[in-house]
Amino acid sequence: MRTVKSPTCNRIMIEKVTPQIDGGVFPIKRVVTDQVVVRACVFADGHDEVCATLLYRRQDAPEWHEVKMKFLGNDQWIGAFFIEEEKNYLYSVRGYVHEFLSWRHDLEKRIAAKQDVFVALQIGARLIKEAAARAKGTEGTKLKAWGKQLESADAGSLQAALTVVMSQELLDLMEANFNKKKSVTFERELLVAVEPKLAQFSSWYELFPRSWSVVPGKHGTFKECVRLLPEIARMGFDVIYLPPIHPIGSAHRKGKNNSTRCEPNDPGSPWAIGSSEGGHKAVHPQLGMLDDFRNFLNKAKEHNLAIALDIAFQCSPDHPYVKDHPSWFKWRPDGTIQYAENPPKKYEDVLPLNFETEDTEDLWEELKSIFLFWAQQGVRFFRVDNPHTKPFCFWDWLIKEVKAEYPDAVFLSEAFTRPNIMYRLAKGGFTQSYTYFTWRSTKKDFTEYLTELSQSEVAEYFRPNFWPNTPDILPEHLQTGGRPAFMMRAILAATLSSNFGIYGPAYELCVSEAVAPGKEEYLNSEKYEIKKWDWNQEGNLKELFVKLNKIRKENPCLQVTRNIRFCAIDNDELLAFYKATGDYSNILLVVVNLDPRRVQSGWVKVPLEKFGLKEDQSYVVQDLLSGHKYTWQGEKNYVELDPEILPAHIFRIKRVLPCEKNFDYFM
Amino acid sequence: MRTVKSPTCNRIMIEKVTPQIDGGVFPIKRVVTDQVVVRACVFADGHDEVCATLLYRRQDAPEWHEVKMKFLGNDQWIGAFFIEEEKNYLYSVRGYVHEFLSWRHDLEKRIAAKQDVFVALQIGARLIKEAAARAKGTEGTKLKAWGKQLESADAGSLQAALTVVMSQELLDLMEANFNKKKSVTFERELLVAVEPKLAQFSSWYELFPRSWSVVPGKHGTFKECVRLLPEIARMGFDVIYLPPIHPIGSAHRKGKNNSTRCEPNDPGSPWAIGSSEGGHKAVHPQLGMLDDFRNFLNKAKEHNLAIALDIAFQCSPDHPYVKDHPSWFKWRPDGTIQYAENPPKKYEDVLPLNFETEDTEDLWEELKSIFLFWAQQGVRFFRVDNPHTKPFCFWDWLIKEVKAEYPDAVFLSEAFTRPNIMYRLAKGGFTQSYTYFTWRSTKKDFTEYLTELSQSEVAEYFRPNFWPNTPDILPEHLQTGGRPAFMMRAILAATLSSNFGIYGPAYELCVSEAVAPGKEEYLNSEKYEIKKWDWNQEGNLKELFVKLNKIRKENPCLQVTRNIRFCAIDNDELLAFYKATGDYSNILLVVVNLDPRRVQSGWVKVPLEKFGLKEDQSYVVQDLLSGHKYTWQGEKNYVELDPEILPAHIFRIKRVLPCEKNFDYFM
Repeated sequence: MRTVKSPTCNRIMIEKVTPQIDGGVFPIKRVVTDQVVVRACVFADGHDEVCATLLYRRQDAPEWHEVKMKFLGNDQWIGAFFIEEEKNYLYSVRGYVHEFLSWRHDLEKRIAAKQDVFVALQIGARLIKEAAARAKGTEGTKLKAWGKQLESADAGSLQAALTVVMSQELLDLMEANFNKKKSVTFERELLVAVEPKLAQFSSWYELFPRSWSVVPGKHGTFKECVRLLPEIARMGFDVIYLPPIHPIGSAHRKGKNNSTRCEPNDPGSPWAIGSSEGGHKAVHPQLGMLDDFRNFLNKAKEHNLAIALDIAFQCSPDHPYVKDHPSWFKWRPDGTIQYAENPPKKYEDVLPLNFETEDTEDLWEELKSIFLFWAQQGVRFFRVDNPHTKPFCFWDWLIKEVKAEYPDAVFLSEAFTRPNIMYRLAKGGFTQSYTYFTWRSTKKDFTEYLTELSQSEVAEYFRPNFWPNTPDILPEHLQTGGRPAFMMRAILAATLSSNFGIYGPAYELCVSEAVAPGKEEYLNSEKYEIKKWDWNQEGNLKELFVKLNKIRKENPCLQVTRNIRFCAIDNDELLAFYKATGDYSNILLVVVNLDPRRVQSGWVKVPLEKFGLKEDQSYVVQDLLSGHKYTWQGEKNYVELDPEILPAHIFRIKRVLPCEKNFDYFM
Repeated sequence: MRTVKSPTCNRIMIEKVTPQIDGGVFPIKRVVTDQVVVRACVFADGHDEVCATLLYRRQDAPEWHEVKMKFLGNDQWIGAFFIEEEKNYLYSVRGYVHEFLSWRHDLEKRIAAKQDVFVALQIGARLIKEAAARAKGTEGTKLKAWGKQLESADAGSLQAALTVVMSQELLDLMEANFNKKKSVTFERELLVAVEPKLAQFSSWYELFPRSWSVVPGKHGTFKECVRLLPEIARMGFDVIYLPPIHPIGSAHRKGKNNSTRCEPNDPGSPWAIGSSEGGHKAVHPQLGMLDDFRNFLNKAKEHNLAIALDIAFQCSPDHPYVKDHPSWFKWRPDGTIQYAENPPKKYEDVLPLNFETEDTEDLWEELKSIFLFWAQQGVRFFRVDNPHTKPFCFWDWLIKEVKAEYPDAVFLSEAFTRPNIMYRLAKGGFTQSYTYFTWRSTKKDFTEYLTELSQSEVAEYFRPNFWPNTPDILPEHLQTGGRPAFMMRAILAATLSSNFGIYGPAYELCVSEAVAPGKEEYLNSEKYEIKKWDWNQEGNLKELFVKLNKIRKENPCLQVTRNIRFCAIDNDELLAFYKATGDYSNILLVVVNLDPRRVQSGWVKVPLEKFGLKEDQSYVVQDLLSGHKYTWQGEKNYVELDPEILPAHIFRIKRVLPCEKNFDYFM
């Protein structure tokens, strides 16, 4: 029985194309000016030369760009392209059997062995004439002429013909006019999700507007918060993140310190969303009107500050949904509604949504409309509360839907959970994510975690956002380490990760008292009461943030996380790493004292070769935090850090050959 | 605009299912009694317990078997099944939200916190009654009764209800009656290609029948070769591999030592296939008739010997195809046919087939018919010459086609080329492959190469076949190392790899003379002349092969390659490794002296814990090669190997607790 059905015999194999997330099911992520470096194994049967090209295009543009990939040996090829516009891109890989080069290599061997080459030249002429037929304009004319020259070559004209054969121009024209019919293109077009610059490089500042009334003890308003904007902008932050701004329920409202006993004036947790005054699309009346919020947003924009809203898909028992859509909640056999529980803990002021409802369609559409409503008001940053307690496929759908209308929307996932889950949410579209940074504290911790985040496939789709504290988390090292610990953790967050954030002004003011020993919650947490902050109080860390954010803005190497590389240093209390731009025009070497109590010193190993420095050469490093300059020489250099003064160096290093002007590097 | 279209919200994610070759495009390979160990990441949103099962079935059976996987932590699950029949299998992974276990865990916490549990019991009763509705027969009855018991529990009957809740029987019944509608099955069914036992464990013996005439100088015949069978069987080989047995062309026939000058009596290379007497389906008349071949094959079967044919898709200029199908060849501009070339080398006695012909359909079908023709004669073993110079898609198709009719066909790929290409051929269906073993010689070489072949994904589809020599390759170490090198390389091939082969009797007779210094070809190669062998000549290694093959047959741990693990030994000239069966009922520790010239000694580190031995315990190891017994103690033990006597130990070790009968282990 004959079974060959018009076989299309692709001689080229294209394997191991990277980056490729789960076989191309999910996109990689980039921002404008980023590079996409693509690797692939491309090979063919037999002994022919092969050639690989990288294909890429804007998703909405019809034409592919095609660039040659570089051969790395052992069938591996590498190529790259830059993201030039804030649009999604596609990429793929193509392989060719390079008939011309195969033929030329054989010809060279024949010549070296002094064999007759005239028949070989006829074969080459055939290839060139085929390319001529595919080529256009002058390229075609040129190729045609060269083909004829080879065909008619004899002893007298042989040398001239061979000069043509070996010319770069002919090779280029042959490659420009490859027989695409004999090429093979990788079976998948891989997507690059391109997002706004702030997706990759951002400094977040979380604050509770209600704590900023000009009248002590009163509930603050958006209007009153406008006065904070210049100072937050001066500190260098980009995003102000607000806990939920919606009406707060009164049923089972929590009192101070999460007490089940609520006093008449207790404002309740902003995460107990919804009351008779409205739900997720309403503004809490004590904060102001929707117009006040819009005004705050616009004023913030004038300071180049974006506003991030907290989207928490859960309801107070007073939320209008409870009456209007009872099927969106779970009901217990005794007829009561199911509140949030993590037995034995009960959260009776909060009802989870029932994603297993029969009324999925209405529920999903309503939740989407919440994002769209706030996007219509001008909000583009959404910090999503506990996304990991809602189905992944819901987020996959929702983010796609919102991005279809607002491609510049940014979603920060607050998924403090297991790595696979955090990563799955990122694959599904979340722009950034909270991380384990909050609890990491040793050199081994940081080295392992940052290596995973920056060197593994994860770096292609998961953008960490490092938070040293949140209203929910006052980690143990901040409770015990004093002001040096607050400095150290801020510097770590701002340099290890291109995205970082703090919950302020509890952070700048080094608030460190926990509700109880062994607990990570703040004493008198702002979640349950109105605070009165004096952020200019003595000892505040505002100037450190001014400096850190300035260094971040002036040094592009801090604006990505993928580029971190650790340096050896002979003291486990010292963490050393460097970050550099791809061209090494910007290099920072950071050394941090992880011990908030003692001076620590050690010898850091500088990767001289990477930095273009020689062993016997002295060079000047300037600490951008202190302004101090040091003259170093060779690979190993001494550092000493007093946590009370400054727990870190951020050295700027220039990759240059030695010259007399060394002292001007940092001018 | 509403866009939710009857959302099917799968809460379960199934990721990183292994083994999975190129996203399930290619099968993994196994033989009967092998295990398939499957791993996967299975997780859900929220805090519910999840549960993963492994699905598997014979590809031709309709019903899936479903077995629980074991939780390894961090969302990872593992499960396994055995291949019980020589049929292809399928496997996949399923995940469940384990509502019952989630509920039970919460209940335990409520009880511990002394909270009211009666509403919780009602919820549990609901789950049990739902399972009862899905269950059949007595299972349904039982579940129904228990549901009622929970529903009606009061203070008096609480304890009895809780005993039911916590019982293993209830848990088992709940799991047996999961709500499959709420389960998620991995989107791919992954294939296990199951092949005959000999695919995984075989000893090959290559011989040229023409060299075995009883009359010196005459061309040998199949009839005469029948007398060799008992001796090859006695040496323990399973497969006799014959170079091409077809008529040999006379055009440009090569003389002795690959000379372009051919004397009248020179028989030519068997790889120059085809003459007026026929092509790939004909038997070379000097070897006998087709019936003689069939008789040889049947006689071999009586000795449990299989015959492997060499399928070389290339033609002598005299092959009938040249006249009948000129389009299957390449033609040069001067009107001559294109012979094989690797400039400056010319192989004018061999024409490659043109796989880029317009007549692909006829060509492919004809080539397939060659395999089918020999399969019809009873041949099941095919050693394919240079498969990497033909398109991959051709082999993918051909092997599938041949296996559809002859599922027990075995294909050995003679692809001495780059790893990606060798691996791609294996993925496409080749059963076994030649390897780089032939050239590997240092401890580092072996450790790295065997680790790649046994510990990486490659082990799932690529079956190495280790050849210390071939008619084309007399490696340098055999040219210079004398008889000890031949012993050493035979022992390495037979113990490192479960498949091995030799080209004999050049091997047993330690033939070591190369055609020229620095060349790897044999002087007076059997490829170009008829040899007269006396395989009983003094110094022959036949008894070593008798012993090696006996050890291989008696020790199942040598019948797989995946299980190799290297042991530390403080001498770089000594290679030490062990192989064990999965249950450690069979363990061999092999130590080989890689230096054929000098006695080498060292201290080998025995993995005591793996072997069930204690540090202070003495144990007896018996060398299965020499028969000697040694009493060892603890982790480090002394070995000394004289290459002139025996360059290796193959120690048998029993994993036992100490007992008085230690000395009987090897009886």
